[in-house]
Amino acid sequence: MDDEEPEAAQEGVARPGRHMADRRIRVARPHSAYFRYEGPGTVTAKREAIAPVRRGEKFSTRLRRLVFGRILASDEEGEERLSKLKALAVFSSDMLSSVAYATEASMFTLLGAGTVAFGLTVPISIVIVAILWIIVISYRQTIRAYPNGGGSYIVAKDNLGTRAGLIAAAALLTDYVLTVSVSVAAGIAAIISAFPGPLESLRIELCTVAIVAVMLVNLRGLRESGTVFAIPTYVFVVATLGLIAVGISRALIGDAPHVTGVVPAGVPLESLSILLVMRAFADGCSAITGVEAVSNGVPAFKRPEAANARLTLTMMGALVAIMFLGISVLAGVVGAVPAANHETVMSQIARATFGTGPLYYLLQFATTGILILAANTSFADFPRLASILARDGFMPSGFAFRGERLAFSTGIVALAFLAIAILIAFGGTVDALIPLYAIGVFTSITLSQAGMVRHWLRERGPDWRRSAAINAFGTVATAIVTIVFAIAKFALGAWLIILIIPLIVMAMLFVHGQYERRRLEVRVRPEAIIPPPTRHQRVIVPVPEVTRDVIQAIRFGRTMSEDVTAVHVTDDLERGEELRERFNRQLPGIPLVIVESPYRKLVRPLVRYLEFTARQSKDDLIVVILPEYVARHRWERLLFNENARRIRDELLGHKNILVAQVPFRRDL
Amino acid sequence: MDDEEPEAAQEGVARPGRHMADRRIRVARPHSAYFRYEGPGTVTAKREAIAPVRRGEKFSTRLRRLVFGRILASDEEGEERLSKLKALAVFSSDMLSSVAYATEASMFTLLGAGTVAFGLTVPISIVIVAILWIIVISYRQTIRAYPNGGGSYIVAKDNLGTRAGLIAAAALLTDYVLTVSVSVAAGIAAIISAFPGPLESLRIELCTVAIVAVMLVNLRGLRESGTVFAIPTYVFVVATLGLIAVGISRALIGDAPHVTGVVPAGVPLESLSILLVMRAFADGCSAITGVEAVSNGVPAFKRPEAANARLTLTMMGALVAIMFLGISVLAGVVGAVPAANHETVMSQIARATFGTGPLYYLLQFATTGILILAANTSFADFPRLASILARDGFMPSGFAFRGERLAFSTGIVALAFLAIAILIAFGGTVDALIPLYAIGVFTSITLSQAGMVRHWLRERGPDWRRSAAINAFGTVATAIVTIVFAIAKFALGAWLIILIIPLIVMAMLFVHGQYERRRLEVRVRPEAIIPPPTRHQRVIVPVPEVTRDVIQAIRFGRTMSEDVTAVHVTDDLERGEELRERFNRQLPGIPLVIVESPYRKLVRPLVRYLEFTARQSKDDLIVVILPEYVARHRWERLLFNENARRIRDELLGHKNILVAQVPFRRDL
Repeated sequence: MDDEEPEAAQEGVARPGRHMADRRIRVARPHSAYFRYEGPGTVTAKREAIAPVRRGEKFSTRLRRLVFGRILASDEEGEERLSKLKALAVFSSDMLSSVAYATEASMFTLLGAGTVAFGLTVPISIVIVAILWIIVISYRQTIRAYPNGGGSYIVAKDNLGTRAGLIAAAALLTDYVLTVSVSVAAGIAAIISAFPGPLESLRIELCTVAIVAVMLVNLRGLRESGTVFAIPTYVFVVATLGLIAVGISRALIGDAPHVTGVVPAGVPLESLSILLVMRAFADGCSAITGVEAVSNGVPAFKRPEAANARLTLTMMGALVAIMFLGISVLAGVVGAVPAANHETVMSQIARATFGTGPLYYLLQFATTGILILAANTSFADFPRLASILARDGFMPSGFAFRGERLAFSTGIVALAFLAIAILIAFGGTVDALIPLYAIGVFTSITLSQAGMVRHWLRERGPDWRRSAAINAFGTVATAIVTIVFAIAKFALGAWLIILIIPLIVMAMLFVHGQYERRRLEVRVRPEAIIPPPTRHQRVIVPVPEVTRDVIQAIRFGRTMSEDVTAVHVTDDLERGEELRERFNRQLPGIPLVIVESPYRKLVRPLVRYLEFTARQSKDDLIVVILPEYVARHRWERLLFNENARRIRDELLGHKNILVAQVPFRRDL
Repeated sequence: MDDEEPEAAQEGVARPGRHMADRRIRVARPHSAYFRYEGPGTVTAKREAIAPVRRGEKFSTRLRRLVFGRILASDEEGEERLSKLKALAVFSSDMLSSVAYATEASMFTLLGAGTVAFGLTVPISIVIVAILWIIVISYRQTIRAYPNGGGSYIVAKDNLGTRAGLIAAAALLTDYVLTVSVSVAAGIAAIISAFPGPLESLRIELCTVAIVAVMLVNLRGLRESGTVFAIPTYVFVVATLGLIAVGISRALIGDAPHVTGVVPAGVPLESLSILLVMRAFADGCSAITGVEAVSNGVPAFKRPEAANARLTLTMMGALVAIMFLGISVLAGVVGAVPAANHETVMSQIARATFGTGPLYYLLQFATTGILILAANTSFADFPRLASILARDGFMPSGFAFRGERLAFSTGIVALAFLAIAILIAFGGTVDALIPLYAIGVFTSITLSQAGMVRHWLRERGPDWRRSAAINAFGTVATAIVTIVFAIAKFALGAWLIILIIPLIVMAMLFVHGQYERRRLEVRVRPEAIIPPPTRHQRVIVPVPEVTRDVIQAIRFGRTMSEDVTAVHVTDDLERGEELRERFNRQLPGIPLVIVESPYRKLVRPLVRYLEFTARQSKDDLIVVILPEYVARHRWERLLFNENARRIRDELLGHKNILVAQVPFRRDL
């Protein structure tokens, strides 16, 4: 086929089916600046075709280009395959970074029973690491089963049905928003710990700036992400491991570092109860987040993708385990304590161990860096999940459109907006947000694993018994953890999440219902052949005055039918007759009906009259042509009444009435 | 002519010109429930034609009927002619009621120089009464010259040009809003003076309730207004005159009443300067408001209208002069003083003179009553002026539409909204509002009188020299007063009015510019005969999918021309070719052009392509038919993109392109 159309071949983009087009098409062959001729019936718009034309638009476009870079064509999407080392950096920032706050979150709760309760920090941390391992092993199964990326939504929807998928999706979306809030708050806390004083009062402002910056970077579309991510991640890992090594070594040789000058934060006192321990455990579980990232990102790995992804997940788990345990142990050794001045526990340990030298500052900056990267991970995940949901019809379709830089702009902006709103609502402190955090994460992890169990039971591939057993164990473990969270943290904010997730699911089902209804309303059977129209048409044009917009509508109607009638609704018969006189003189041959409306309403009597006419001539199609003056700017339109729209809305859905709006604007 | 059409004659409504209609009109002769046949080409909608159809609408209509009464036809407008006695009550409530606060306002300012300055109250009051008389005499001329109603806007516009008219109108509109705020605040203050304590904290709430109540009454449309107005007005007049008579008699017989238990309000102290006296004078001038009402309302008087109106105006002036002077004198006699607990001076005088018996309460309630009536006067004047401005194109046309009860609903609601907003902004106290008040009144009075001078100089009717001299004297006097106000009160809020009036004028000129532009854009020369269309039409239909709305648009296009082309814009050529295959199969004979848009924009490339086509076939008319799916509810429409509207906006104004939107909705 290609040999018939050498032009297309020259373009070097051979696409199947392009030349199956109807041969008779009178396609313009534009030698224009705007289009490239591709073959009969097909042209491609050049970049010039989307260039701005109006002055304001030109300016805003130039500004956009400056901030975000030039517009990208769909085929310009770069696909970077990640080595294990880079992948670890890209996918693990969320998970690794939580080391920076998880220990402190747990200690903050324990502080309620006095500093003596800190003896429980290490045991609790060990339990958390155990849970982490269960999850890591469980997710290794997911990677094997979903080499194309197995997010919780997909896994749960595939195996447990739409509703479970949506619950997982709602939990994840909530979680992504909270990840941004918590990570950015913690990152700014690290900076404020290093430079206390004036910055303290700017906490929320700094968080907002950080989120907006990450948003802008993501709207621009992140390139070479692997390298950019690797540096702060590895600095953080090396510095933290170094901190642990130095601290523990010094403790072993009897020169244990000690924190000085810290006033413990004032918290309401309570007795050391099971509930308190459960809450401290839940807080510490904030260390377990971001497992989703790897299982989502399998296709980005170098070959063999699944194997590399599994290895990366394991490495990541091991690193988190070592770092989290190390920090928990060290916190006890150095006597760190959640501080009244909000200095972080990490900062206290580092200050005690390294002194306030360059190493201390390096660690603080690296902490901020990796936490901002963690937020950045959500800026990739949230819009991606939102776009999948939008494609499935569960979110507004705007979330599925890729912007000028190929990023899902709507999702990115929505995420930034929500994260900032939450930070402001909670006053910019991490402690208050963490209770809200883990429950979403564990809900989605549980659903994903339960989905995997179902998957193995259905597929029964090699080793299915073992895989199912692993995932089942994981499901039970995380389900228990989720329930523990819900109970322990209910009064402290978990109720909000327990309330919000079903609300989000309901909203998504509602949106889906709307799209589905639209689909049914406009559906055309694929086998139907549509014949040309044959029915006699009666055209009716509402005429408020003899003006250009009205005349345009009447002339328009006359090209459709010989049978054109004008209707004038008025509450003033005398002026109506004046109009009739003028109308008959200027538009001879078109009858004008005057409908007197003594109650001054214009729309309803007109609609009734049109309905009446439609009923009288059941075999005809009544075409109502509505002239509509369109002001240049939207806000100017407030000055002109919306009768055309109201008439349209009232007439829609009638059997043999068809409505057309003929807008008019004239450039003087 | 009538004998040709007996049906119409039977209806008993012979209207001129009705039967000049085109004889060939195929008018439906509806024996329907909705229309009455009136003659060829004319039907009248019955009340049933505007009856609600949807459930929600039925409920809201029933609720509206309950609150506001049944819908009124345009010819049901009752025109009550007012006797002098009733007219005095209807038109004077604004002016008489200001007696309740003018003295106190003046004293409040004098208090700054200590209670000794109260000696100036009576001299200042005498000057104010003199000014009042100048204005009354001046306005008697206006009534003579404008027997059909001569508001400041009309007089100034007729004689001094549009801009002067608009300044007067802006000043009046501001004044009406402030009248409502000030009167209601003072009315509620009278009640709170009688029942101090718990009500004090509800001041703003009570004011809001009162304004909303007056608004509802006015939306319903006031009937039998004369009688309703007469009672509280005359009770107030008689009670106040009685108060003055008793008080002064007791003083003359050496038993002068004395106020007890009043703590003077705390005000910043200052020396007794000219500026202070000027300010006290300005405050007292709030007694001179509402002259406009009579000159506006001349047509409502019994014959001879002008003479009766002039007499009423004189009576009104005399009453105000007596009452205002009397209260000012009595305030000094009884030793009343603006009180820390906001008890009004009127209340103090009445308490001292009558004791807190029934007479006292009668006066307080009558005061509240007449003040609320004064607010009510603005609820008649503001919407009326707004409607005149709207008819002249200086305000949005909505202000000229009469609602279901024949009231100018938009203006009524807008006035209530503004008055409540101002009361809330100023914390519900009168003192703060009065500086803003008088300057608007005197600006419009000055412009009106200046207009009258011009009028006499132009007309040169009988007595023109004398009339012109009177009005010229009035103009100079009120102009001086206005300037005194602006200087004395500048820092105390007059600057706001001086700023707002030009802003309102600019807004009105802007609105007028918009309507004027529209008028020019759509204007058709009255002598032009519009021929039937002859140009060849090429129809182009943008096709995103093969759906019912698209097919409806294509069938629509096919009734206009044999030359119909479909255009599909896509960023995915493969899916485009799939669509083409389906399209060619289901809609044989209609060529489909695919425009590939590698940058994912849909609107701009389509518009460029259509423009290109239009340029290629300059002799044809390109008709672009836009299919448009319409969701049932507005908020549902958020889920569907607005591409049709955007394409329309971009294509409007092109030479040989005509756009038509063909909306689709199907009731499943």
